[in-house]
Amino acid sequence: MDPETEFIDQIALFAALLCGCIVIGHLLENSRWINQSITALLIGLGTGGLILFTSGGKSSRILEFKQEFFFIYLLPPIIFNAGFQVKKKQFFRNFMTITSFGVVGTLISFGIISFGATRLFPILDIGYLEIKDYLALGAIFSATDSVCTLQVLNQEETPLLYSLVFGEGVVNDATSVVLFNAITKFDLSDMDLYIALEFAANFFKLFSLSTMLGVLVGLLCAFIIRTLYFGRHSTDREVALMILMAYLSYITAEVFGLSGILTVFFCGIVMSHYAWHNVTHKSQVTTKHAFATMSYIAEVFIFLYVGMDSLDVGKWRFVNDSPGKSIWASIILLVLIMIGRATFILPLSYISNLIRRDRNEDIGIKQQFVVWWAGLMRGAVSIALAYKKFTGSGQTIQPANALLITSTITVVLFSTIVFGLLTKPLIRRLLPQSSQTEPSSPTSSTTPLLENGHDDPENGNQGTLRTKLSLSMLLNSPTTTVHYYWRKFDDACMRPIFGGSGFVSYATGTRDMDVIH
Amino acid sequence: MDPETEFIDQIALFAALLCGCIVIGHLLENSRWINQSITALLIGLGTGGLILFTSGGKSSRILEFKQEFFFIYLLPPIIFNAGFQVKKKQFFRNFMTITSFGVVGTLISFGIISFGATRLFPILDIGYLEIKDYLALGAIFSATDSVCTLQVLNQEETPLLYSLVFGEGVVNDATSVVLFNAITKFDLSDMDLYIALEFAANFFKLFSLSTMLGVLVGLLCAFIIRTLYFGRHSTDREVALMILMAYLSYITAEVFGLSGILTVFFCGIVMSHYAWHNVTHKSQVTTKHAFATMSYIAEVFIFLYVGMDSLDVGKWRFVNDSPGKSIWASIILLVLIMIGRATFILPLSYISNLIRRDRNEDIGIKQQFVVWWAGLMRGAVSIALAYKKFTGSGQTIQPANALLITSTITVVLFSTIVFGLLTKPLIRRLLPQSSQTEPSSPTSSTTPLLENGHDDPENGNQGTLRTKLSLSMLLNSPTTTVHYYWRKFDDACMRPIFGGSGFVSYATGTRDMDVIH
Repeated sequence: MDPETEFIDQIALFAALLCGCIVIGHLLENSRWINQSITALLIGLGTGGLILFTSGGKSSRILEFKQEFFFIYLLPPIIFNAGFQVKKKQFFRNFMTITSFGVVGTLISFGIISFGATRLFPILDIGYLEIKDYLALGAIFSATDSVCTLQVLNQEETPLLYSLVFGEGVVNDATSVVLFNAITKFDLSDMDLYIALEFAANFFKLFSLSTMLGVLVGLLCAFIIRTLYFGRHSTDREVALMILMAYLSYITAEVFGLSGILTVFFCGIVMSHYAWHNVTHKSQVTTKHAFATMSYIAEVFIFLYVGMDSLDVGKWRFVNDSPGKSIWASIILLVLIMIGRATFILPLSYISNLIRRDRNEDIGIKQQFVVWWAGLMRGAVSIALAYKKFTGSGQTIQPANALLITSTITVVLFSTIVFGLLTKPLIRRLLPQSSQTEPSSPTSSTTPLLENGHDDPENGNQGTLRTKLSLSMLLNSPTTTVHYYWRKFDDACMRPIFGGSGFVSYATGTRDMDVIH
Repeated sequence: MDPETEFIDQIALFAALLCGCIVIGHLLENSRWINQSITALLIGLGTGGLILFTSGGKSSRILEFKQEFFFIYLLPPIIFNAGFQVKKKQFFRNFMTITSFGVVGTLISFGIISFGATRLFPILDIGYLEIKDYLALGAIFSATDSVCTLQVLNQEETPLLYSLVFGEGVVNDATSVVLFNAITKFDLSDMDLYIALEFAANFFKLFSLSTMLGVLVGLLCAFIIRTLYFGRHSTDREVALMILMAYLSYITAEVFGLSGILTVFFCGIVMSHYAWHNVTHKSQVTTKHAFATMSYIAEVFIFLYVGMDSLDVGKWRFVNDSPGKSIWASIILLVLIMIGRATFILPLSYISNLIRRDRNEDIGIKQQFVVWWAGLMRGAVSIALAYKKFTGSGQTIQPANALLITSTITVVLFSTIVFGLLTKPLIRRLLPQSSQTEPSSPTSSTTPLLENGHDDPENGNQGTLRTKLSLSMLLNSPTTTVHYYWRKFDDACMRPIFGGSGFVSYATGTRDMDVIH
């Protein structure tokens, strides 16, 4: 069979499996245990097993996973959609807590996993690992995957909890990838204070530049659509421009060695805040759902692939001699993950509660447990980072590297399936009120934020803010105050230029007739 | 620079160029001459020239065009969208004429081009070509590209003309690709009557099987969405399933050696007739515009690439010694294309007018000229087919093959730019009424069918049909009669199972509250 025909066969099988995942995921929607990710993972495992069986143990995959494929095509739509659909009011209200969990927390988690691995792995006698490898391990296993938990949490009933888990998930993704890139690029062989400081400076430079680039591209897109009045001629062109500019922001960040994830996330936020209000009503509906759909397909694709790939014999060959080591390594990593999360959730929640002062918004012990639990799962980002680090140019031939790959797969499979299956019953027990309603929004399973994502700022937050603002409040809640001044600035300077809800531009006169429904 | 970094740079540049094409295309929307395809082609040429200049004449492209890429990723969304957005009533009303133009016409065109090339090319002394090569040439150059003309024609004012050009374009694409595949697969070295008959039988088998597969997948999708009541849980899942099943139909056809183009086209028609009515209102808006956007991006991508690729030095190297031959070959091909089209448009229009009997629907001489003109342009399909045939495994090293590639590029560039620039003024002169209004629909530039694509069958055609039907009408207009019986069958058997407009299933009860607007 020539490679082209084979490739077409592979794509056909993969497309069929994706369709199967969607249908079965739909049928299991109301199940007590299973969710979409686990479904895809199990279908992937099943298919992998079947291929392994029919090929006589030679192969378990249809397509070969290239980590570039993941980072270039699958991750951008997921992260962009996360930014685009995020409930901005909640996100920015809890901005400090989210950032502290997502950045400081991830760094603490990273430190504990790296340190623990440095101490415990030599006992296993798995072969020599450099300091860089341990640090990379820390970064790989601090990348959480909170999709499972988000599917169970109810945004309307527990808005604070939801925004914490969601926000931490996104910022955590970005932090761990930035961290990972910083580690692989830096020479950390002889660590001293100077190098550590330089590393930290580099990390923050990456962080801020990436954010700025995303904001800039988002604003540019809003500006172009607004000034050139795109809706006049074509809805499709508006949608196409938004998709392409979002992707452009991601790929430009990658070209300049920045974090595409952060860039495209902020690009999504800015686009939904400005550009989205400049397009026709039809484009608004289309972009909302089309972005969510792309993200959904990418997510199912990843879990399906991870399931199929985890049975790949090539990776397990080197572990055959010492299966015990791989299992012990996985257990160590799982324990370190649990300790790492506990170490930062408790103190950071305590600090956050101190700063907030509003007792109604306290993060209680049950909520802390849910946040902790939500971040225990490991997913596609960990797999992709591990592949990037420990495979390629024949590196898997080294036993230590092969073992780390298999341990990563084990941790991802175990945490997604076992922890994932426990999530629904556990959260319903902890947060009993959420058990009365449907677990997921009727209109969108992956992004329950969808419907209310673009809230009108005119008749919500701002009115109450203006009347309540006083000196004591300014001292008590710095975040809210920052939010108030941002709103003022936004109304006075940004929205007249870039558009946004409440500012009907001449360009979208037609849109607003549509919008009355 | 390592290949991965280089690849990311290439993608970034390409994404930026695509954005540029969209913005410039929007700005030139009202131009007297230029249209989106020409814009993309010129930007591609410009960028290619710039790269050629900066790289010191080494390369003119960013990415390398693989013909699989075109056939696997870019063509399916374009053709699927064509089927999905086609105004079914018009399409099936003119079904006989469209099919005769698209199938019989393309075969005549193919015969004339092949025969002409067999006689004229040996005079040029370009090297030895087999009979198979000449036949392939015929297939390559009977694939028209009527996008340019469609952008100028007004669907509301000249519905017959529009549906003829549009319908012929799609059927022609399918016919030429099926023909091309049949030629490359068949051993035609010693042609006799038996082989010719077998070839014809094979061609029609491909044609009917492909159509059936598309219809089947479309019905299956409608059935799944209807019975499983997808909208209950998630809009995104509905949209994802429609996208994936459409793609699955294409790729399955390719796996079984059928024509993916025909399959996905009919899958699109069936999906828009049944499945589209089973999804929520939001999914309806999203699918309409998302499919149009994907198709739009794919189209711009192709023209941009063709422009950039046409300056590739590798292809022109072998022609350097004898530039005259390449120019003469291009001129011969262009003349053959013009003769080929004229040969079938005139007699087939005459026959069509005879059968129709309704003098108001006659295809007049001006309309025949427009149909003829619309099919003179050659585009991406020709390029892709030429690459498939004459490159790969170092075939371009043969001077004859290299010359055929450069001639193809020349014909495509010349016809798209020169004929394309003349299209707008020419059609406005021929059909003066269309010059009063805007040339393109305000909501969608690529698919002016969009808004009215899903017409309600209840309050249109059928009522009048039922009252007028009589024996004389049955004899006079067989197409209309077939249409009438199909409607009856559709209402009685198909729609109760697969859904469709007018049949509100229990599944979409929520949708219909939405729909009143």
